[in-house]
Amino acid sequence: MLIIPIIILSPVRHMAKKILIIGSGAAGMTAASSARKFDKGHDITVITEDEDIAYSPCAVPWVLEGKNSWDGIVMHKPDYYSKEKNIDVIVRTKVDSVDADAKTATAGGKTYSYDSLVIATGGRVFVPPIKGKDLKGVYTVRTVRDGRNIEACMKETDDVVIAGAGVIGLEMAVALKNTGKNVTVIEMMNQVIPRIADSDIAAEVQKHLEKMGINIVLNAPVEEVLGEKSVEGVKADGKTYSCGMVIFATGVRANLDIPNQLNLDIGQLGAVVVSPTLQPYRRGRLVNDIYLAGDLIQCRSAAVPGPTMSQLGSSAVRQGLIAGRNAAGDRSMLGPTASPWISVIDELQVAGTGMSKGLASWYGISVVEGKAEGLTRARYSPGGKRLIVKIIAEKSSHKIIGAQIFSGEDANGRINWLTSAILSGTTAEEFLFMTENAYCPPTSMVTDVVLSAAEDLVRNLSG
Amino acid sequence: MLIIPIIILSPVRHMAKKILIIGSGAAGMTAASSARKFDKGHDITVITEDEDIAYSPCAVPWVLEGKNSWDGIVMHKPDYYSKEKNIDVIVRTKVDSVDADAKTATAGGKTYSYDSLVIATGGRVFVPPIKGKDLKGVYTVRTVRDGRNIEACMKETDDVVIAGAGVIGLEMAVALKNTGKNVTVIEMMNQVIPRIADSDIAAEVQKHLEKMGINIVLNAPVEEVLGEKSVEGVKADGKTYSCGMVIFATGVRANLDIPNQLNLDIGQLGAVVVSPTLQPYRRGRLVNDIYLAGDLIQCRSAAVPGPTMSQLGSSAVRQGLIAGRNAAGDRSMLGPTASPWISVIDELQVAGTGMSKGLASWYGISVVEGKAEGLTRARYSPGGKRLIVKIIAEKSSHKIIGAQIFSGEDANGRINWLTSAILSGTTAEEFLFMTENAYCPPTSMVTDVVLSAAEDLVRNLSG
Repeated sequence: MLIIPIIILSPVRHMAKKILIIGSGAAGMTAASSARKFDKGHDITVITEDEDIAYSPCAVPWVLEGKNSWDGIVMHKPDYYSKEKNIDVIVRTKVDSVDADAKTATAGGKTYSYDSLVIATGGRVFVPPIKGKDLKGVYTVRTVRDGRNIEACMKETDDVVIAGAGVIGLEMAVALKNTGKNVTVIEMMNQVIPRIADSDIAAEVQKHLEKMGINIVLNAPVEEVLGEKSVEGVKADGKTYSCGMVIFATGVRANLDIPNQLNLDIGQLGAVVVSPTLQPYRRGRLVNDIYLAGDLIQCRSAAVPGPTMSQLGSSAVRQGLIAGRNAAGDRSMLGPTASPWISVIDELQVAGTGMSKGLASWYGISVVEGKAEGLTRARYSPGGKRLIVKIIAEKSSHKIIGAQIFSGEDANGRINWLTSAILSGTTAEEFLFMTENAYCPPTSMVTDVVLSAAEDLVRNLSG
Repeated sequence: MLIIPIIILSPVRHMAKKILIIGSGAAGMTAASSARKFDKGHDITVITEDEDIAYSPCAVPWVLEGKNSWDGIVMHKPDYYSKEKNIDVIVRTKVDSVDADAKTATAGGKTYSYDSLVIATGGRVFVPPIKGKDLKGVYTVRTVRDGRNIEACMKETDDVVIAGAGVIGLEMAVALKNTGKNVTVIEMMNQVIPRIADSDIAAEVQKHLEKMGINIVLNAPVEEVLGEKSVEGVKADGKTYSCGMVIFATGVRANLDIPNQLNLDIGQLGAVVVSPTLQPYRRGRLVNDIYLAGDLIQCRSAAVPGPTMSQLGSSAVRQGLIAGRNAAGDRSMLGPTASPWISVIDELQVAGTGMSKGLASWYGISVVEGKAEGLTRARYSPGGKRLIVKIIAEKSSHKIIGAQIFSGEDANGRINWLTSAILSGTTAEEFLFMTENAYCPPTSMVTDVVLSAAEDLVRNLSG
């Protein structure tokens, strides 16, 4: 296993710096806290367009379903940061421009100078440029404000179309269905959770959603939002679906406003190219004193030779940690990333890490998969849930490059376990031959399904 | 990461062999099935003293609590093996002697010849040689028969003493408490779960048990079982505890009857020394055609340079797999072992892997620990349970050699995740710097508590 240091824990202290952070999502706020942890003397300011900071956008569906409150998911208010961490947070303020030579940013008519700048302006939901996309009743899911708008609209309509069957779309579909709405999910690809989940895992999820009464329409790009002033329906693949609300969950694209203004190099995934220190490039040359973290960068994949985007809350935190430290004077480096994800869809847990078969084929990589189905507990132990594990290896090297889990419980630790295997470059054989699993009848089968999948994988690789 | 092959999956076939397996626990029955999988032609016979085979002894407390039935925990009857797998199982039959030169075993007045012998006779609960230990009402927990005897006795008394506060003792205590018994657990060491759990984790477990109304007595070796014909009480550390049943859960010792009769070398842990192929030694010399698996062997530790015993169901299966294949003609090797364990104690999950601090000190190893406390879900997500993770590293090499988890849910995947780190020789820094975790509000915190513990560990190692 290679040592790829992310965090160097015995820092050399520098003179007090002015650190300016643009954006208050997981990446921006973590960068601010991390810079403060690294150095008590620095001046740290966060400027954000948002009104709410330090909340988890992943939690929006849970609030709409009534399992959380808006106040509950906002961890801290701006004055917490000023009082407890000596960090200034300026909300509802857009940064209009950055001057990298003068090292200043202009926002709300004021000019802020900086020694180090962190750009953590995240991404924006991509809404296809179709007719009707700006009608009243069309929403995206990104901020607490988005969530509150959807909540208000829920009082006016019972029929909702969700465009996009990714995890956010499906979590929204379940949340709204559970509040009694009629929900139709319309997806342009031929499966739910396209790209990151394989079709067999996706089919299991779809079956459950349909059993809940959610209408799933595949192979149907949304062509138009119908209505005069407000939404009356959606046209997709030539058919009309009437509804009073449309939620676009059609993927997030990097917010390149500031990077473009600074002429930073943009990579093949449409995101900012960064060094392992999270610094950007301009015409191939490293730019000093600027760091990026979160949904707007592309970084190095641990699963394949090439770049990847990791638009996840946990990745934003991991990157924010490094960007903050480096802005404060450190030189920590981000390791390669497998981007493990997990989604709770009604009673189901679906999780993945590294390459899906679809992603692998996009990278031109031949893979072999192993798969096993069992239970989360011993067969005779009450309450056991169905558990499907698949593991994907690169065909020639036998290295594990991906895994997916479909389960009723306990998927989280298992997907992290498999993520470790990817991050350390483990082959299928090494994983199978080295691994032991803990056992107790109410917590797993005597041979964990993860190991049964690894056994199947090794068999398939040798066959 | 080294390749340590346990299973070689493209075997070369040999001539039909007579394989004799002594013992029908997890190790013996797995060895039988594994030998059959390896070769369809071999003659495979299992001889066992037990009446029930292919059950999980770990499940006995769950049946007593009413969560399973005796029939439910027995996976297969002997005729399943003869019909489905062409394996003969001879129950209620004790092997009196083995002649390694003639390659025969004598049992129930008959002589069985073999080409390969698997000894999987497991362990026996160690009951201290004290007065009253054979009184009516004194039990151990090992077989379904033991369980049925305890169940019968439960109808006759409401007061139970459990001697030994290891995981079996505590699981029994909870099971009996939940059926309305008055339960006292008496332990000679100064904490519950001695040896494999550290005192801080043990204290958390003890607090919960006491809240349930279970009486815990520490630092008190059981000195005598009181009573005329049947149990009336227990004397420990000079005090008397009246009860109608005593259950000894005082640890398992290797059953050395056959190994001693064969003059096999016994190691410093009081168990049979075996090669990685699971063959025994006689005066330092490898013995051919005999293989051992399960609670009676000592094997190589993954956490420390030295031997370890792994008296776990999952280890028995792992070893049985190899013993069976090798008896059938293979030459697979057992990798080093970290012995991950998990126990469900009422609503708690307690798990560990590799060295505890106590075990490490027994091996003469200096350690540093890292610890973090958080929740199993995002702070605002309903139903999150308290989660404590500690990770133990060897002081000079920084290698992770142990971990423990105290949690309300999802400990299993996390302890396997940490076990992988031990098995692949990962340092604390490598683990922290490489690792990513999946995140969704209902399944973990945005930075998993495992990573927070690793961060604390790295800080303590550098401090």
